Amino acid sequence: MTKKQFRTLADPETVEKTITGLDLDPGTEAVALEDAHGRVLADRVDAAIDVPGFDRASMDGYAVRARDTVGADEADPVHLALAGTVHAGEAPGVSVAPESCVEVSTGAVMPPESDAVVVVERTDETSREDGATEIAIRTAVAPGENVMTAGSDIAAGARALGPGTRLTPREIGLLSALGVERVAVRAKPRVGILSTGDELVRPGESLDSERGQIYDVNSTTVAAGVEAAGGEPAVYPHAGDDVAEMERLLRTAAAECDLVISSGSTSASAVDVIYRVIDEQGELLLHGAAVKPGKPMLVGRIDGDADDSSDDTSPSAYIGLPGYPVSALTIFRRFVAPAIRSAAGLREPQTATLEGRMATEVRHPQGRLRLMPVGLVEDASGARLVYPVDKGSGATTSLVEADGIVAIDADTDYLAADEPVSVQLFSPDVRLPTMLGIGEDDPALNELLDLLDRPRYLPLGSREGFRRLRDDVPDVAVVAGPLDADHDAVDLGGWTREWGLLVPDGNPDDLSSLADLVDRDVRFVNRPTSSGLRTSLSRAVADLADERGVSRHSLVESIDGFSATVNAFESPAHRLASGRAAVGLGLRTTADKHDLGFVSLGDQPVRLLGNADRLDKPAFDRLETALAALPAHCSSLSGYRFAGE
Amino acid sequence: MTKKQFRTLADPETVEKTITGLDLDPGTEAVALEDAHGRVLADRVDAAIDVPGFDRASMDGYAVRARDTVGADEADPVHLALAGTVHAGEAPGVSVAPESCVEVSTGAVMPPESDAVVVVERTDETSREDGATEIAIRTAVAPGENVMTAGSDIAAGARALGPGTRLTPREIGLLSALGVERVAVRAKPRVGILSTGDELVRPGESLDSERGQIYDVNSTTVAAGVEAAGGEPAVYPHAGDDVAEMERLLRTAAAECDLVISSGSTSASAVDVIYRVIDEQGELLLHGAAVKPGKPMLVGRIDGDADDSSDDTSPSAYIGLPGYPVSALTIFRRFVAPAIRSAAGLREPQTATLEGRMATEVRHPQGRLRLMPVGLVEDASGARLVYPVDKGSGATTSLVEADGIVAIDADTDYLAADEPVSVQLFSPDVRLPTMLGIGEDDPALNELLDLLDRPRYLPLGSREGFRRLRDDVPDVAVVAGPLDADHDAVDLGGWTREWGLLVPDGNPDDLSSLADLVDRDVRFVNRPTSSGLRTSLSRAVADLADERGVSRHSLVESIDGFSATVNAFESPAHRLASGRAAVGLGLRTTADKHDLGFVSLGDQPVRLLGNADRLDKPAFDRLETALAALPAHCSSLSGYRFAGE
Repeated sequence: MTKKQFRTLADPETVEKTITGLDLDPGTEAVALEDAHGRVLADRVDAAIDVPGFDRASMDGYAVRARDTVGADEADPVHLALAGTVHAGEAPGVSVAPESCVEVSTGAVMPPESDAVVVVERTDETSREDGATEIAIRTAVAPGENVMTAGSDIAAGARALGPGTRLTPREIGLLSALGVERVAVRAKPRVGILSTGDELVRPGESLDSERGQIYDVNSTTVAAGVEAAGGEPAVYPHAGDDVAEMERLLRTAAAECDLVISSGSTSASAVDVIYRVIDEQGELLLHGAAVKPGKPMLVGRIDGDADDSSDDTSPSAYIGLPGYPVSALTIFRRFVAPAIRSAAGLREPQTATLEGRMATEVRHPQGRLRLMPVGLVEDASGARLVYPVDKGSGATTSLVEADGIVAIDADTDYLAADEPVSVQLFSPDVRLPTMLGIGEDDPALNELLDLLDRPRYLPLGSREGFRRLRDDVPDVAVVAGPLDADHDAVDLGGWTREWGLLVPDGNPDDLSSLADLVDRDVRFVNRPTSSGLRTSLSRAVADLADERGVSRHSLVESIDGFSATVNAFESPAHRLASGRAAVGLGLRTTADKHDLGFVSLGDQPVRLLGNADRLDKPAFDRLETALAALPAHCSSLSGYRFAGE
Repeated sequence: MTKKQFRTLADPETVEKTITGLDLDPGTEAVALEDAHGRVLADRVDAAIDVPGFDRASMDGYAVRARDTVGADEADPVHLALAGTVHAGEAPGVSVAPESCVEVSTGAVMPPESDAVVVVERTDETSREDGATEIAIRTAVAPGENVMTAGSDIAAGARALGPGTRLTPREIGLLSALGVERVAVRAKPRVGILSTGDELVRPGESLDSERGQIYDVNSTTVAAGVEAAGGEPAVYPHAGDDVAEMERLLRTAAAECDLVISSGSTSASAVDVIYRVIDEQGELLLHGAAVKPGKPMLVGRIDGDADDSSDDTSPSAYIGLPGYPVSALTIFRRFVAPAIRSAAGLREPQTATLEGRMATEVRHPQGRLRLMPVGLVEDASGARLVYPVDKGSGATTSLVEADGIVAIDADTDYLAADEPVSVQLFSPDVRLPTMLGIGEDDPALNELLDLLDRPRYLPLGSREGFRRLRDDVPDVAVVAGPLDADHDAVDLGGWTREWGLLVPDGNPDDLSSLADLVDRDVRFVNRPTSSGLRTSLSRAVADLADERGVSRHSLVESIDGFSATVNAFESPAHRLASGRAAVGLGLRTTADKHDLGFVSLGDQPVRLLGNADRLDKPAFDRLETALAALPAHCSSLSGYRFAGE
């Protein structure tokens, strides 16, 4: 069988309806009360006993016959003979005859014939002439006063909790009071998770990048999402490229689970297996949704495997998610999590929607619903700016750099800068970062970020930090190297770092200057043009060109690998370690950390530039404190100098 | 040692400060990634590898040297020889020589010498005359196009997640991508829970009401609260009245836990033990708080037990909560949960505060901060009315009948009806009931409530339902028996139920009428005056008095137990079962359910009266539907008649 394509992409409402129509009902199960926290009652619970089970003294004092206290007051107390004492947790050994009383503690069983308690503060203990104790009662009480009668909290037979009640500590308290030890709750829908890419490796196993292997992100992410939605995830072992094993796992998962989820595979063989199993043993309900991301979505049903030993032969639902992690999680959240919650008997979480304005314009040519990941930043007045997080759907870092989704209709093709938008947070407990920084990556900066509360930092390079600060997006830009003087940002402080050339330990090519890099035949690895290190290098190259009276271009051309760039400050060190380069642009501290040789080319400043309009944000106070404390946290960094040191 | 009283009650700020000053730090632990959901990172995580680990094709198509595609367009394609194929998950076996290309699938390793991918949609496969395959490229691509370069998602050495990050599915996704299998997280503070009342019995064990035993509510409630706050509860066995065992448990718990919580005991011996242990082995920091509830609060520190085999000999914090469940949970939430969350590294939940207006006035003479449990109900416009839930602190049902707390300052002594107040919800996910009903209790009503979504029903009796409906508190009053004609409520429907006298099976006293109850010497059990059953009984007594030409009072006097009332519709049946009464007021259906005899005294109407101002609330639609469906759910109830049947 070949890939069957549905003729048109299903609109989002059809996707919702199709998934709602799947039967994920997990039935009910009985759990011990101590495990019931967060679960959902399957049935109504009526009280089986009276609470309290007896007339109970609700204050410390004396149990009396109320009629004996008539007329008692401070000026004219009534005197009653003390007939005995009843503590909480013991059966009364005496009853209250007329003109007598019994000492009771809070929680005690009211002794027979008594009907009220006089609180101890309104009594005095005295002795009669015959030595017997009597109690002076300085207030009158009504029948029932300071007594909690049997069943007055809740009576046997009364409705205690309704079906569908979510059990929080409060409901668990009421069930405890009723003596309930086990309780019938909705079972958690069991969700099988299959990973189908030949290239996927489970975290913890070793990775062969030469063969294009990557760690499997979706299995753990979707499993955590299933758990958060009230389901019970079951991650099945990875079949690799074994098609027969893949088919066996899919049929087993379908037999064992209420829902099976796989995420889009790049391997055609896996897709074929899924089609075959659904074709032979189920029904394909939907293929392709008019949603970006999510076009390759698949919804179907797989009948229980009659050969399987599992008791459950009811059909399992099947949903295929897109393969890229951000896409998979976005589609899971929007379409799948609600179905799992509903099957688990949980309500949709409170709407977590924040209003904001677009920080930049967004064009959207696709003509399908777009669920665009966005980040949020607040200005000093608390107004929210919304910026798209778009590193490409394949980027896993987008998962944590975005706060929520802006849904753009199929017939909207443009959002202007400053346009008001609604952001659906990923969950109601998403907290916005207190501070957004963009700019250079730097090890001292990493220490600084650790001292802040919920910062977000996008290491896009000095140039990009500076550019976006001009566009008013971040609170802070971090800029390394020579600084453009023409800006209205506020310099908040910074440090200098020693930069130069990373070379293998022992400096085998015996490089000692930039000139050596130009003149010798060594393979170099550079940093991108947005990096402040690159700016300093380019200045040094320009200076050398001036010195030699040649063009900058001719020098650059003679550096093998000048255009080969790597992403982060430690990346050149990794290139050297793998033998793919013999010299790299980097920091002295990186050379020391990785036991590399180092050719110093100078010091460069790293400055934190604050957005002048945002300085009233409370995070700036914390940043100031953190900057002051920073040098003490950077003692292991070599080549760093801080102001005042 | 005797009870030491601190001279003054601590104000709430002092309580907070004292508890904040306790050291609950549980340290850190390593957990597997699949168990890390919801945990809090102990340290920063830097990427140990590049993601992706190789230059990766991000589309299906052909890997090319970008310079070979210069000038290609739809009208004038470039033709490249097909040199081979690379799938995702395999090492490239070919490189891309000039004027050639290699087929790649999404996720594949870019073959050597290639630097861009042309998507398959912009290509055609053709055959050369010599039979070799060549690819027509109908678009030019730039270097890097449709390629995700190694480390471009995140590079080795870059900061991935900061310390203190809470791990949601998104962060777990990023950690998976980095191949992280175990992660260092903050440990959960271990909280020992001791129950100290002699009268307390654990749910599931049998209860001796004669001895004044009640089920232990606080242990399970506080344990669930500890769990919700991110701690790990450890409930210690119950020592009963064994003082030596109690002391042993307290010392063991102090050695094993970061915090030990007990809840106020009514047994003086338990309090003495706690004092002795703190005195011999710790420090008492605070006794008594100017908070209602919470006056008996105790805060201290117990040093680790050097004799104990546990490694942990650091001091344990100790907090004594009030004994009544609502008080214990209120104080726990306000003062203890924040300290546990902070030790667990969790942030305070989003403020969940709702504004409303008091439905009734409240007087507050105490001069201490009062944390008053309240319920909320919305009117048709969504405005919220706030009513106090005050069944007495001992009532466990208050736990679920309240939605939150109104904090009344020590110097406020009065809240007027209609006064605006802020309600702190018990948790941010508290959902208000969709409908508030007050009135008669009835088995058919219980079925009706099961058909509604999140109803709240307070079974305070017909009279109270009617009274509070006049005060505009509930949405619906449920009234049984003869109805006061003078009201402006809207009759929404109802049913009739057969009422009369419950007697033991076989009717041993041979009762056949109300007259027999008056004339014979049998012990009766009645329902409260607020009950509609009582109203019908009183009418019948009045009719009999008229018939006999005697006073109603004289008839009532001759019924033994006429003033003895029990709380719920099944309670009289339980009284009969325990032999404490020989005849009770009740329903035919209760008699049938409990295999009792029944003397019918007639049918009475049960009517649902809607608050005329609230009929636009959506819950009324659902109520109408539920009423229509109700008869089918009541087939097991005898003596019931529904409209239209």
